Amino acid sequence: MGKSVSVIGGDLRIIYLVEMLAKDGFNVYTYGLEKAEKLQNINNVFNCKNIEECIKKSKLVISSIPLCKDENLIKSPFSNKDILIKDVTKCLENKIFIAGSIPQDLYNLQQETNFEIIDLIKCEELAILNSISTAEGTIQIAMEETDFTLHGSNILILGFGRIGKVLSKMLNSIGANVYCEARKSEDLAWIETYGYNPVPLSKLNDSLSDKNIIINTIPSLILDENRLKLIKKDSLIIDLASKPGGVDFEIAKNLGIKVIWALALPGKVAPFSAGECIKQTIYNEIKDKKIF
Amino acid sequence: MGKSVSVIGGDLRIIYLVEMLAKDGFNVYTYGLEKAEKLQNINNVFNCKNIEECIKKSKLVISSIPLCKDENLIKSPFSNKDILIKDVTKCLENKIFIAGSIPQDLYNLQQETNFEIIDLIKCEELAILNSISTAEGTIQIAMEETDFTLHGSNILILGFGRIGKVLSKMLNSIGANVYCEARKSEDLAWIETYGYNPVPLSKLNDSLSDKNIIINTIPSLILDENRLKLIKKDSLIIDLASKPGGVDFEIAKNLGIKVIWALALPGKVAPFSAGECIKQTIYNEIKDKKIF
Amino acid sequence: MGKSVSVIGGDLRIIYLVEMLAKDGFNVYTYGLEKAEKLQNINNVFNCKNIEECIKKSKLVISSIPLCKDENLIKSPFSNKDILIKDVTKCLENKIFIAGSIPQDLYNLQQETNFEIIDLIKCEELAILNSISTAEGTIQIAMEETDFTLHGSNILILGFGRIGKVLSKMLNSIGANVYCEARKSEDLAWIETYGYNPVPLSKLNDSLSDKNIIINTIPSLILDENRLKLIKKDSLIIDLASKPGGVDFEIAKNLGIKVIWALALPGKVAPFSAGECIKQTIYNEIKDKKIF
Amino acid sequence: MGKSVSVIGGDLRIIYLVEMLAKDGFNVYTYGLEKAEKLQNINNVFNCKNIEECIKKSKLVISSIPLCKDENLIKSPFSNKDILIKDVTKCLENKIFIAGSIPQDLYNLQQETNFEIIDLIKCEELAILNSISTAEGTIQIAMEETDFTLHGSNILILGFGRIGKVLSKMLNSIGANVYCEARKSEDLAWIETYGYNPVPLSKLNDSLSDKNIIINTIPSLILDENRLKLIKKDSLIIDLASKPGGVDFEIAKNLGIKVIWALALPGKVAPFSAGECIKQTIYNEIKDKKIF
Repeated sequence: MGKSVSVIGGDLRIIYLVEMLAKDGFNVYTYGLEKAEKLQNINNVFNCKNIEECIKKSKLVISSIPLCKDENLIKSPFSNKDILIKDVTKCLENKIFIAGSIPQDLYNLQQETNFEIIDLIKCEELAILNSISTAEGTIQIAMEETDFTLHGSNILILGFGRIGKVLSKMLNSIGANVYCEARKSEDLAWIETYGYNPVPLSKLNDSLSDKNIIINTIPSLILDENRLKLIKKDSLIIDLASKPGGVDFEIAKNLGIKVIWALALPGKVAPFSAGECIKQTIYNEIKDKKIF
Repeated sequence: MGKSVSVIGGDLRIIYLVEMLAKDGFNVYTYGLEKAEKLQNINNVFNCKNIEECIKKSKLVISSIPLCKDENLIKSPFSNKDILIKDVTKCLENKIFIAGSIPQDLYNLQQETNFEIIDLIKCEELAILNSISTAEGTIQIAMEETDFTLHGSNILILGFGRIGKVLSKMLNSIGANVYCEARKSEDLAWIETYGYNPVPLSKLNDSLSDKNIIINTIPSLILDENRLKLIKKDSLIIDLASKPGGVDFEIAKNLGIKVIWALALPGKVAPFSAGECIKQTIYNEIKDKKIF
Repeated sequence: MGKSVSVIGGDLRIIYLVEMLAKDGFNVYTYGLEKAEKLQNINNVFNCKNIEECIKKSKLVISSIPLCKDENLIKSPFSNKDILIKDVTKCLENKIFIAGSIPQDLYNLQQETNFEIIDLIKCEELAILNSISTAEGTIQIAMEETDFTLHGSNILILGFGRIGKVLSKMLNSIGANVYCEARKSEDLAWIETYGYNPVPLSKLNDSLSDKNIIINTIPSLILDENRLKLIKKDSLIIDLASKPGGVDFEIAKNLGIKVIWALALPGKVAPFSAGECIKQTIYNEIKDKKIF
Repeated sequence: MGKSVSVIGGDLRIIYLVEMLAKDGFNVYTYGLEKAEKLQNINNVFNCKNIEECIKKSKLVISSIPLCKDENLIKSPFSNKDILIKDVTKCLENKIFIAGSIPQDLYNLQQETNFEIIDLIKCEELAILNSISTAEGTIQIAMEETDFTLHGSNILILGFGRIGKVLSKMLNSIGANVYCEARKSEDLAWIETYGYNPVPLSKLNDSLSDKNIIINTIPSLILDENRLKLIKKDSLIIDLASKPGGVDFEIAKNLGIKVIWALALPGKVAPFSAGECIKQTIYNEIKDKKIF
């Protein structure tokens, strides 16, 4: 079968990924990317007539992150075709299927049709690498939406997970006064160790009034009405938490506090790097499988 | 005369400055800022009928940076009136006149009309503080104009003056591979000491081909045709050098290299902080004069 | 009973702790610290005649870290007395007993004699805070044992746990070229994210030959004969791993490679800070118990 | 004459320099280094019988930094011989003579005997590179002489010259709270820009009482009796200023404040790196002379 990969659907990150895989010497067989101009003049990237032909070319089948547009269709913004999930799955026998947020019913299919699933959204490595793009995207938004410099401003980060760690490091080194909220005493010890200002959840309310920017990474309603009322009107809130988000947007609006809800930043602010991260993660995930 | 300041013309930075001076307890008498809404409801900011009335209120007279719109007029974007420089100067007796890029003929006037001039553009302190906004503005542009993260990218900075120093520090700490070009062996020693990659001018040409972003701070044509031809087509060039700039824009365009010519960033990306810097500089400039 | 604490035995860190607790307003009742001069003139520190008297004064009983000198005795370098563990435990009814590396049989005693145990060595918070002192102590040793600057030198850190994280951050910011070895792809992703050079275990051998300093934090024999033979004779190895250590010391010696085995650094290089960390951890551990 | 260098006298840094020059392919002819064991088995390092023979071998003649032991003799700790300065100068015709702190009378000699002088102590590049070793040496001393971690401690640096700049960067990134004293408003603006706490000389006295470590780089008596009385008894003072130093040592002693007067650190803490810096500086100094 040679050194080949099949790719079905996906957004700009996947297009960069295809370009990189081709550059690394793979023959890349694509379906559902026909509108991606930059792929059209690459010798070892092939546009397949149909799903079956595309998939049978390779052991490895890569698809969209997230996989689904809706319960039936695969996300494929660079295609005019509707790509049915079931049309893909029925060809997956003995394949390794790599995509993001893969729904449970595909896992159920693994028994009958024998194939392997790698869900990139579950890969810690990718999540960490993506936090760089997310952090930079957040900094870009903070710069665009304020009339002051980050240097010398008071910035509070809610949550000290992956994004909190990367963001606090970058903001601190730009010269901001960085405050990090966390629940666990371990996280607070890390915040202290890294030289930021630790804010235990119990003291959060006392810490809201003098912040110029507040960035939330916690996927639950932490900035509720009571807390929003403690925040300066001219503060900027950036919410990085996936739906339903961590801010009561309605209340914030009524209070006249600007809130930017920024989701899926890696694909938006740095699709090339996002593609690189996906590539690196896939290489690490398959390196023990000796398929090439 | 009490604790008062007169302000004539100026852009958004001056409006923020007026707001801060008022907050610090000064009575601020303004002329040529009547379109600045945010000043209209501040108790101790007064909109004067004419220049003479405005100036006679204070020992300190602050005007635009730069002072001149053309050889006759003062820059006053927040006014519909034409403010003649000579109408201001004729009232300056015994005053301290603070503005930016003040033309020579005002210095000549000092003899006859007895007044003192402080040109903010000549204040090293302000130039240093402004380099923070310039650096952050440059980072914002770099983030907006690229599809990759600054983290992990190769960035070359031409010139290791004030802006080069601040910019290299910030970019390095975000995770970029920072290269700094300089002529003097002292500067190259500093670049090494700070942990960046020193690029002597003599080796510049060998260092151009693998850079993702090149930022120029040198006010002379350093990126000429020969050098531009050594740069990757998909590199981004940001030129921070004042007119005529350091890049042959015509050639770059023909070569298909994207160049952003970014001037006067502080006032654009962080007018509030720019106002703060101006305030701090003025306070330091006058602190020995015991006028308040 | 008032705001009081009982302290039995312990080293210099405990003496600093007692001093700080007294400063914070506690009456501190001590036994087995009679040789600590700096405690003798503090008003609210009391030297007790015997264990029973000492313990009954407080709800909180703090002892040595580690607790035991041998299976029978409590570690008490600042006392001439032998302090039997069983003489302490028999008085612990209804007390909270705080010490380090507390042996299992004390846990077994909890049923009959009703008391609570807090083992500080099991507190993640303390371990993190201690990693600062360990990192600084390691840097001090590296500076003392070499004739070159850390700035510009190649330093490899084995293991990316707590100490690896803090140490790499400090060394990197001093200007060293920092390489970090790790097994897990997540850790390698973090190393990349923080801007150090990731070294997968599989590639460790290729990375040994050009390092000036190698610091081990892994508690298993990672630097065996094969690997030691790949290291430059004039390299410095610092082993931070507790017994049996991560280096074949015999072989290293024969090869003429200098190895420093540095254990328990916090108490040695920064006993004051170590005491502070213990205090902060104890305060956090008991804050929900409402005993004061 | 081939690629050769002559070296006369000098300390451990010069010995490392000779080793490096030999490694770079120079034939190195030495006089007054006969006790340096590590040079004895290097093929292209030659121990000369007398000064004249040594010097005539090369265009380039390198000697001690500083040059003089007293008004007549060259500093040569690795020799049992007395090396008279005049015995060297009389052979220097048409040579380039490189050493440190070269006395005026040698400059006067240049007319009659025609030779060129390069005083390394006057080379800004070397001074900058040496500030790295000085900064690391200072950090080592601070770690050795305190029982607390630099992380989290309050450190005041007097003077923001070369050493102040490098030291504040390193200490800040280790996690200390860094305060920098300076006179000029430009320097204070830089201190602010780099994210440290600026202390104008006029406010120095208010800033002394809460510092754990005070490091002086100013070559004049700044810590006099009045200021020393404002410093905590348990503070550590490190004076890096060359004789007569910046501290009233007598008063400090009476007040019971520990003062370490640390001079010529590069040669002591990192002679290898010091040798490297000397080499790099010499290479840059002669590169335009086309002598090799």
